This record gives sequence, structure tokens and C-alpha cells, in this order.
Amino acid sequence: MTTDAARSGLAETPLQSVAWAGDRLDLLDQRLLPEQIVFLPLTTAEDVWEAIRQLKVRGAPAIGIAAAYGVYLGVRNTEGDAEQVRAEIVRQADYLATSRPTAVNLFWALDRMKAKAEALLAGGQTTDAAALKAAMLDEAKQIQAEDEETCRLIGEHALTLLHDGVGILTHCNAGGLATAKYGTALAPIYLAKERGWDVKVFADETRPVLQGSRLTAFELQQAGVDVTLICDNMAGMVMSKGWVQAVIVGTDRVAANGDVANKIGTYGVAVLAKAHGIPFYVACPLSTIDLNTPTGAEIPIEERGEEEVTHGFGKRTAPAGVKVYNPAFDVTPHEYVSAIITEKGVVTAPYGENLRKLFAK
Amino acid sequence: MTTDAARSGLAETPLQSVAWAGDRLDLLDQRLLPEQIVFLPLTTAEDVWEAIRQLKVRGAPAIGIAAAYGVYLGVRNTEGDAEQVRAEIVRQADYLATSRPTAVNLFWALDRMKAKAEALLAGGQTTDAAALKAAMLDEAKQIQAEDEETCRLIGEHALTLLHDGVGILTHCNAGGLATAKYGTALAPIYLAKERGWDVKVFADETRPVLQGSRLTAFELQQAGVDVTLICDNMAGMVMSKGWVQAVIVGTDRVAANGDVANKIGTYGVAVLAKAHGIPFYVACPLSTIDLNTPTGAEIPIEERGEEEVTHGFGKRTAPAGVKVYNPAFDVTPHEYVSAIITEKGVVTAPYGENLRKLFAK
Repeated sequence: MTTDAARSGLAETPLQSVAWAGDRLDLLDQRLLPEQIVFLPLTTAEDVWEAIRQLKVRGAPAIGIAAAYGVYLGVRNTEGDAEQVRAEIVRQADYLATSRPTAVNLFWALDRMKAKAEALLAGGQTTDAAALKAAMLDEAKQIQAEDEETCRLIGEHALTLLHDGVGILTHCNAGGLATAKYGTALAPIYLAKERGWDVKVFADETRPVLQGSRLTAFELQQAGVDVTLICDNMAGMVMSKGWVQAVIVGTDRVAANGDVANKIGTYGVAVLAKAHGIPFYVACPLSTIDLNTPTGAEIPIEERGEEEVTHGFGKRTAPAGVKVYNPAFDVTPHEYVSAIITEKGVVTAPYGENLRKLFAK
Repeated sequence: MTTDAARSGLAETPLQSVAWAGDRLDLLDQRLLPEQIVFLPLTTAEDVWEAIRQLKVRGAPAIGIAAAYGVYLGVRNTEGDAEQVRAEIVRQADYLATSRPTAVNLFWALDRMKAKAEALLAGGQTTDAAALKAAMLDEAKQIQAEDEETCRLIGEHALTLLHDGVGILTHCNAGGLATAKYGTALAPIYLAKERGWDVKVFADETRPVLQGSRLTAFELQQAGVDVTLICDNMAGMVMSKGWVQAVIVGTDRVAANGDVANKIGTYGVAVLAKAHGIPFYVACPLSTIDLNTPTGAEIPIEERGEEEVTHGFGKRTAPAGVKVYNPAFDVTPHEYVSAIITEKGVVTAPYGENLRKLFAK
């Protein structure tokens, strides 16, 4: 614990957003933050599907973890032999994959669950339905444990690009709430604080759903980090004042050429960073990099309901019937990306070549 | 009336935001739009000061008009001779000038009121207190009438830079609500519509006070213009899709070198426009150009309360006690400005030279 955190009695990393509770998944309802801290007990795959769909859980790694537990919840009461359980695992995983279209970790985690079942049966390691179900729970726990270690390593690698006294701007929430612990973009901030560095963070509020104000500002404040909340459209001014030496964001999917899909507005921040000569870093686990997606143009971009823009805060703030365009993500072309920071190290351009090398490591 | 407007029964230009009503100033409370259309009867200079301070009236030209009427309201009951009335005019004008720090039209209109009184007395045209008071009302009306004509001319000049089928992105509200009529940035849109052009407008919602969603989307929709509301952080994506061929914004003050102060977020839009090869136009009357301000660095930038960011929508959306940075304006360096469109014509770089020439016309 750092001095500040000890003084305030606050934990250094935020609340655990996804926690297995013996017979159910306890999920922190991130939509209610920062006003209410409510854990939802999820007991079925349908519960998990709804939670992902409605953004109760968000953040690519946290979604993947929740979905993995969702597979187990979806099959734990399945009758029949191991082969019937395997078929149900596939069915539940395919169902959970329909909850949201953009986050590749969702598909990655579900594929891993299916592959695990396949391998156990094909290898003859399990012929027992109960053992197969238990293996699904273990695999979900393993995905969660690995994510925590992955985030720590991402933080360590990111620190090599930063320095004591650094000002960091971040967009959306790629923090502890979005992962098992530490986060991706926020991991180096927690580690820097542990080391006693002076770090100043600017958090874009991130319209329309305000993940920046509700989540990033919340979890950094909880951890005693010096965080300043700004509206998205203030990022340019903050940069022009010389207060920012690095932008760090998370991502929902990196294409093979280094194009980066992330929360809407990330692209604008990247263009501003380039105009100010500020490095623009993307922090993510390897599971977020999809070599099967050639470029950002092939990443499906979810468009969400207009109410997020017109009624985002419980009351109407736009004229009735007005047309709205509400893409949930944008794509930042790789030319704007100074480095991609993973658990296996820091990758720079040319990304097509160097991302492949990373996976070959 | 165009066909669309005639069909819907809507007026082509929006509600008049500042209207003299015989014995009082009727001011449309812009904070309540789009949900409620409420006109406030203002009868004192203090009423006007409060209305400007609390953003009930906003938009540089509309603020100037309201302040001019405010001077009359402040002196109409003053006892004494013409010299005493003149002294009170100065006092009321200086008081009204303290309502907001950035909009140069405010100071311009108040100086004009003071100068008018001075000229009448110095020239011996008036020695009568009642006549001097009446002249103040006439001058305020004159400022308003000139503003309407100015906006129309700005629209005409702007049209020469646009074409049928154009997609336009705008930030904040520089529309009819911000002026006597037509607006500055929105003037060419109303004129284009009169001519039957197909124009598609993207309106940034403009956090934190949402002038884009509450006002621009409202007034364009009222006029039957094809308008799409977006969050500020979606401007980059809309541009990258090729939907925008011109950005047009208003301004609160243009410095002698062409630097432009406008609503926070304008600078980010300008940087994005440049990155996409889209022209960035600033529309304003000459009264907004301040040759006495050498560069944008000398323009005072108002910082407003954190509640606008943390409670902008009637409920808390950020953790209690979080630090907030909330500048109301930013400065766009002249390098990003493709042209400044005024009632006297279109000015391009070098601005230092060409703005001076404009005033000499």
C-alpha cells in the first residue's frame, strides 16, 4: 500500500467487477457506479447474456471472463452424458457470443471454453459429464487468474515508456473494473503509484455512457490517484497546455495491421495526440489482437440506441424525434498508434510484421 | 417558405431569443430548451446581468443585444438631468460588462451604447434626459436590426464556399437563437434551404451544457433541416466516413492574427478537420473581431463550475469530490482556420493583414 492509500484506508486497486462466489457469479453492476455499488448474483447463461448486452459488465477482458463463467452456468444443470454436455457447451457459447459484436475477447474466451471441452473429450481425459462441467468452471477461473497476471505484465511493460511526473490522458475505462485486476491502460498508473511516482491523470468523461467519469475517475479516485475529469471535447485544450506526455487507452480489438477499435472518441484523441507530438499508446492482452482481422475496416462497429445520446442522464436533453448517429466504437488507423503494449512486451510499427512476431514468441 | 417547412407548418428560422416587448425585454430561456419554451420578462439591468451570467441568453451577438437593452432598462427610471443619465449609462454598462468575460460582442455593444450617449451630449443633439433614455432604446433596437442584416449577409458570403448536397458539421450553437435571426454559422444553412439545396448537418451535442443537442438540433429540426445529432467525440468518425465537406462554427472572439476563441471543443474539431482535408470555416460579424487582442493567448478563457460536468443532466454522473477542469472556451490557432466569413466578405490568411483590410473597407 502506498502512503496515500494507507492514509485513506482505500484499496489500491478497485472493486473486483467479476467474482465467482461458490455457486454463482457476482457481477458489479457498472451502470450504477459511482452512486451505487451493487453486486448482481448471476445464476444462468441468460443472466450473463443480459448483463453483457446491457453493459452491466463492460471492458473487453471482463466481458470475456464473465462469458466464460456464463458457459459453466449454462451447462451445470445439463442432463446427459459427456457428449451431450459438450454439445450444450457449444450451444451456450454460441448463444453468449451473440450478446455484443465488437469485443474480440468475448469470442476468444468462448472459443477457449469450447476448445477445452473438445480437448478433454478428444484426449480421453474426461468421459464423465460431471467432470467436464467442473472443468468448465476451472477454465473460467483460469482465464480470470491469467487476466490478472496479464494486466500486471502490461503495466510493467508500459512503465518502461513513462517516467516520474508524467501526465497521462485516457479515454473510456480500461481499468481494474474492465479486467480481473489493474486494468490494461490503467495498470501502469497503479504500478507507478506503488513505486511512489507522481502521476497526473486526465480522464475523458466518454460520452454517451460516461465510462470515464463514472468508472475511470471513480476507480482512480478510490485508489488515491491524482485524477482530473474533463469532457471529451477538452482533450485538445489539455494537450495544448502541455499537461499530457502520454495518451494510454485500451482496445476492444486490434487488427493484424495494427488498426485499433476502441470506444467512440478514441480516434479523435489519437489525431489530437499526433498534432501535439504526444505518443499514443494502446494497452491490451494478446487475446485482444485478432490476426484473422486484416484491417480495421473489417471490424464490425456496433451502433447503439439513440436514447443513450438523447436521454443519457435520466432526462431528455435533445428535441423529440431528432436523428441520432451513435456508433459505440471507432477505428484508429495504425499510423496514429505509437506502440501497442502487451503482456509479452511493447510492439511498434511495422505492426503487420511485429504483431506476428509477438505471437510467435 | 420551402416546401418542407410549409408542409410541417414550421417557421424557417427559429424562435426569436431576444425581443423587445414595448416595456420589457422578453428573453427566451435557452437553458430550458428543447423541453420548455419559456419567455422571461426582464425589466431591470440586474435581470439582464443574471440572464447573461446564468446562460439563459447565450451566443455572442444575442448577449450583445440583450446587454444593450439592459443599459436602457438600467437607466429608464434614473432621476436627474441628461448628464446624470449619461453617468448612469456608463455605470450600468460597466456593471453589465462583468456578467461574462469572453464574448467581445458584450463589450462592443456596451461601448456602443456609451459612445452613443457621449456623442449625443457632446454634439449637443440632446440635452434632455428623457430624450437620452429614448435614444438608448433606439440604439438597442438598431443593434438588433443590424445584427439580423449582418447574419443574412454572412449567410450569403458563406454560400459561395458551399454547394448543393454539402454535408456540414457544426459545434455548439451559432444559430438563430444566438443572434437576432439566422445565426452566423447556421445562416448559410437557412439560406441554402430557401434555395432548395440538399444540405445535411451534423450537430455536435457540445458538452457540458449541450448547446448542440438542446439548441442547434432543435432550431434546425424546427426549420425542417436534415440534422443528425452526435456526441462530440463522434466528429472524427463522421469525418472519416466522408460525410462532411465543411465545418462551420461561430466564435466569441477573433484575435487580430486570426486566432479564434469559441466554445470548448472547437479546437479539437479544427484539428480533426485539418487531418481529413476538410475546410474549417468561422462565421462571425465584424463586431466579434477584436484587433486590440493581438493573439488568442490574450483572450481570457472563462472556467466554469464543476457541476456542469459532474451534474450536467440533473443527476450526479461522477464520483463525489473528483477534480474537474471545465474551461468554457478554447482557442483555435489561425493555422487551422480556412476562412473567416463576415458580413463584409470572406477573409483568408494571412489574417493579420487581411483582417485589417476588412475593417478598412
